[in-house]
Amino acid sequence: MYRIGIDLGGTNIAVGLVDESYKIVVKKTTPTLAKRESEAIVADMARLCREVCAEKNVDIKDIANIGVAAPGIANHRNGCVEYSCNLPFRRFPLVKALADELGVEESRVKIANDANAAAWGEAVAGAAKGTSNSIMVTLGTGVGGGIIIDNKIFSGFNAAAGEIGHIVIEQDGALCGCGRRGCWEAYSSATALVRMTKEAVEECERTGRYTSMSKAERISGRTACDAMRAGDEVATEVYNRYVKYLANGITNMVNIFQPEVISLGGGVSNEGQSLIDAILPIVRAEQYGGDVVELTQLRIAELGNDAGIIGAAALEQ
Amino acid sequence: MYRIGIDLGGTNIAVGLVDESYKIVVKKTTPTLAKRESEAIVADMARLCREVCAEKNVDIKDIANIGVAAPGIANHRNGCVEYSCNLPFRRFPLVKALADELGVEESRVKIANDANAAAWGEAVAGAAKGTSNSIMVTLGTGVGGGIIIDNKIFSGFNAAAGEIGHIVIEQDGALCGCGRRGCWEAYSSATALVRMTKEAVEECERTGRYTSMSKAERISGRTACDAMRAGDEVATEVYNRYVKYLANGITNMVNIFQPEVISLGGGVSNEGQSLIDAILPIVRAEQYGGDVVELTQLRIAELGNDAGIIGAAALEQ
Repeated sequence: MYRIGIDLGGTNIAVGLVDESYKIVVKKTTPTLAKRESEAIVADMARLCREVCAEKNVDIKDIANIGVAAPGIANHRNGCVEYSCNLPFRRFPLVKALADELGVEESRVKIANDANAAAWGEAVAGAAKGTSNSIMVTLGTGVGGGIIIDNKIFSGFNAAAGEIGHIVIEQDGALCGCGRRGCWEAYSSATALVRMTKEAVEECERTGRYTSMSKAERISGRTACDAMRAGDEVATEVYNRYVKYLANGITNMVNIFQPEVISLGGGVSNEGQSLIDAILPIVRAEQYGGDVVELTQLRIAELGNDAGIIGAAALEQ
Repeated sequence: MYRIGIDLGGTNIAVGLVDESYKIVVKKTTPTLAKRESEAIVADMARLCREVCAEKNVDIKDIANIGVAAPGIANHRNGCVEYSCNLPFRRFPLVKALADELGVEESRVKIANDANAAAWGEAVAGAAKGTSNSIMVTLGTGVGGGIIIDNKIFSGFNAAAGEIGHIVIEQDGALCGCGRRGCWEAYSSATALVRMTKEAVEECERTGRYTSMSKAERISGRTACDAMRAGDEVATEVYNRYVKYLANGITNMVNIFQPEVISLGGGVSNEGQSLIDAILPIVRAEQYGGDVVELTQLRIAELGNDAGIIGAAALEQ
């Protein structure tokens, strides 16, 4: 029996028909056009659902589960998106609206926050498969997180929990998008890595110190990583600084949650195993109770951009 | 039907006979003498259990539940204290040892980490009564924490989770007892408040600035609080600094867990409602999603030193 997963982003709506082994067999996307009315967005979500079904000659009524990964506070208890930064939803009954639009029962439609859905995807079919307690940390524009406890998404009593990027790890530190200073997000997101790289290059320009990165046309999250691998000293310092903050935040997660697996996703995780190899010794040295208990494993997330669709399709609550 | 709660501390063993409304009706204590063999400590725990029962003419076999709050990593799944800083227990099967000593079935004896048991006590019969999701933060020698999720103690897959005092909130900050630098514990424990107070007094002595605290015979966690209330400027600065760190750490907890209630226990919490009044505006201004979701309530813990006994007696898992 097929499932449908919908990844509702600020830029695109992506809908996947997902088989019983959590593989996406058909995928369709359309621009979100986030400034539209909520209803128009839901109509497009429903249209893509029908399209992916049509491609495999499946009736929407025969779909086991339709899940939506939505940005913001997606409340699985009442089916509402309470709030979203990038979309027009305010206490919007997304589950009801989509079920009505598709002509299915509301109980067949589930929602979760997008970072939580991605973590659930990794837990069901990715880097944390086979575990009951895991955390996915997304190192992208921000630092997102999804927490799985006892095979369930943990979202707190008000569906807003799990904002692990918004832990202050440096008092009065760098300004975060959330308004606080010194959040983990302000040090470990891809955006933060770009900022640290730019600051280092500017410093070199001021002081006359050499760095190959001065020649970069555009500084991205990969600039320092690539230059570090090519032996650039300044890039190595930037990378080590980034790694230190990241390892620190990961150690915080271990000390609080002691999950079986922490998986790293998002743009920065494209660095792959070398990123894990850089972080792990710091985490092991700093974590609490390290020599007594079974240890949290660090892994690179496996599902990439499909984690949200797969996790949404697999939602059970 | 009565229950028994045992609070096994580094200094004292306290055993309470607890009634159905979670009131302690008899309490007995004895020194732990922590350097003894594990078996001798267990024998004393059992002796106190028999003594509190004798006082009410209850047969130990008629006790509904015997719970132990133990320091360190207390694993409820296998009944072992895996490790404890202050006691000789290393992978010690405490549940079996105590059940054997008392002649009751192992299934009647439960264990939990002491901070977790205290949080469970507050959830069952104290400041978080009636909620399903709460956190107790203990501001004592260290910063301890117990996390209740969906009416269960959360301790991770390896029983070591919930070390919320060991989140780094200041990079390369003050040295913590755990070996890391900049842990929340190093800024928000009573010990940290004493350190900050001493540093401020020393600074005054160096610079000739006046503070009434110079006259204190011994600086405790109350010194700055009392002097602040008497109008001392330096004390006010120390208190405000302490409050800022504490509020910051509490905000981190809100952003991660969004519990219904966070209760504050331990020595510093004797400051009472004025402490909450100082922290709350900072938490509200800094927390994530503050204007959309139902808000975490901050409260002073209610059970004081009895939280561990009551929580242990109420253990269900």
